Amino acid sequence: MNEFDRATSVSAVGDGVFHVDLSPDWNVGLIPNGGYLMSVVLRAMSQQAAHPDPLSATVQYLRPSSNGPAQVSVEAIKRGRQVDFLSARLLQDGKERLRATAVFGDHARPGGALNHLTPPGLPDPDDCVRRAPNPKAPTVAERFEFAIHPEDAGMFLGSPTGTGLLRGWIRFADGREPDNLSIPTFADSFPPPVFQVHPTFAWVPTLELGIHWRRAPAPGWLACKFTTATMAGGYLEEDGQIWDAQGQIVALTRQLAHIEVKER
Amino acid sequence: MNEFDRATSVSAVGDGVFHVDLSPDWNVGLIPNGGYLMSVVLRAMSQQAAHPDPLSATVQYLRPSSNGPAQVSVEAIKRGRQVDFLSARLLQDGKERLRATAVFGDHARPGGALNHLTPPGLPDPDDCVRRAPNPKAPTVAERFEFAIHPEDAGMFLGSPTGTGLLRGWIRFADGREPDNLSIPTFADSFPPPVFQVHPTFAWVPTLELGIHWRRAPAPGWLACKFTTATMAGGYLEEDGQIWDAQGQIVALTRQLAHIEVKER
Repeated sequence: MNEFDRATSVSAVGDGVFHVDLSPDWNVGLIPNGGYLMSVVLRAMSQQAAHPDPLSATVQYLRPSSNGPAQVSVEAIKRGRQVDFLSARLLQDGKERLRATAVFGDHARPGGALNHLTPPGLPDPDDCVRRAPNPKAPTVAERFEFAIHPEDAGMFLGSPTGTGLLRGWIRFADGREPDNLSIPTFADSFPPPVFQVHPTFAWVPTLELGIHWRRAPAPGWLACKFTTATMAGGYLEEDGQIWDAQGQIVALTRQLAHIEVKER
Repeated sequence: MNEFDRATSVSAVGDGVFHVDLSPDWNVGLIPNGGYLMSVVLRAMSQQAAHPDPLSATVQYLRPSSNGPAQVSVEAIKRGRQVDFLSARLLQDGKERLRATAVFGDHARPGGALNHLTPPGLPDPDDCVRRAPNPKAPTVAERFEFAIHPEDAGMFLGSPTGTGLLRGWIRFADGREPDNLSIPTFADSFPPPVFQVHPTFAWVPTLELGIHWRRAPAPGWLACKFTTATMAGGYLEEDGQIWDAQGQIVALTRQLAHIEVKER
């Protein structure tokens, strides 16, 4: 089994209750990455959904999780003809670490398709900046290959662009293909684009991560575009688009984060 | 008291439990508008929050509500030093009609501000298309004044633009000024911009509505821009920006909706 599916596997231990084991391989510092946690919880929710595809999901990050055993408790709020509404909690040591809600439906349903968005326009991965191993990068970064748009690579080279924009390709390092369940993990794996604007800030914890899925990705690289355009009181959004190797829009992401000023 | 505050008032009847009375004045057809319901639930949640400002909130619309008495039950998931995490349910006749989650914080906190977004660029309200009373418009539309960007008025005149874009000014008809609590109601009051692309569809029910707040609006008109750029299986996002009369970004909105094909 590939490392993503192993690290996000869930075992049913009761009605809507799942045992999970949070792997240290997907950490940022000492705590599991928020996107990885969202994929774990989404996998548990998908087992309680009657419809096949996540359409949208939102996770609130209440407290840091730690590596090791955890429990996911899923509530099927309503299973409907068109969509399912679900909620879930991830608990460790009796304390709730995150709360999730999700809507599941069926993307193969007839009903019309549309895309007015412009793809991120990335050069081929071979013409992008392949991030070299960096001892300061979080552990989770080792799970991926990144190929960063040359125009946006400044933040990795000590010359941030001032744009709040970060575009790049991503794929799993072990060749595991992307799918609906892994989209949250990809969505939270690039460094925060606000570092292009405020490079002195050390830490941008996610308070909430929301994703809208439009289709399951085709195999291959994913082309991503993340932007932070507004901030107030240190609270900011990070908006993302994820496109597949066939040039189709896969998902829209939006997170609420806040900036923790680096201590000197 | 103005009609918005009257229609969204909540009375505490227990610990985190509120009585509300859903007004028929904010209906679309026979059911209360989803944005109005979100404002009602947000007001109940704000009374259980230790921090003053909503930073983000997401509502799942499980079943239609009806006019008359309802109960809002708020759970304070976690009250923290930086932010509060809350959840709420709106119930009628013992059935849950919507589920909400929210993060509250403090916009006056020091921490940096940023805006890279371009304002919608609306002409003055007097140079926009003031929507005339329309017997086919939903009741809720009578609560507002609208001034639509002339370039986007096609959908009201039988000549949709094909853009998926709708820009316009909005304010309460009775002069009540906008604030954080009324933003959800404004956010769901324009007709769906997908009507610029698929004018034959009759009904675009909201499955989920999410809002990020950046600051409380200044008094006066709000300048709004709503777009639908992607759709698959009839599921679509409607993304919005809400700006205040001082040209400051107030909120970002995103809803998941699905198209119900008109019967012929």
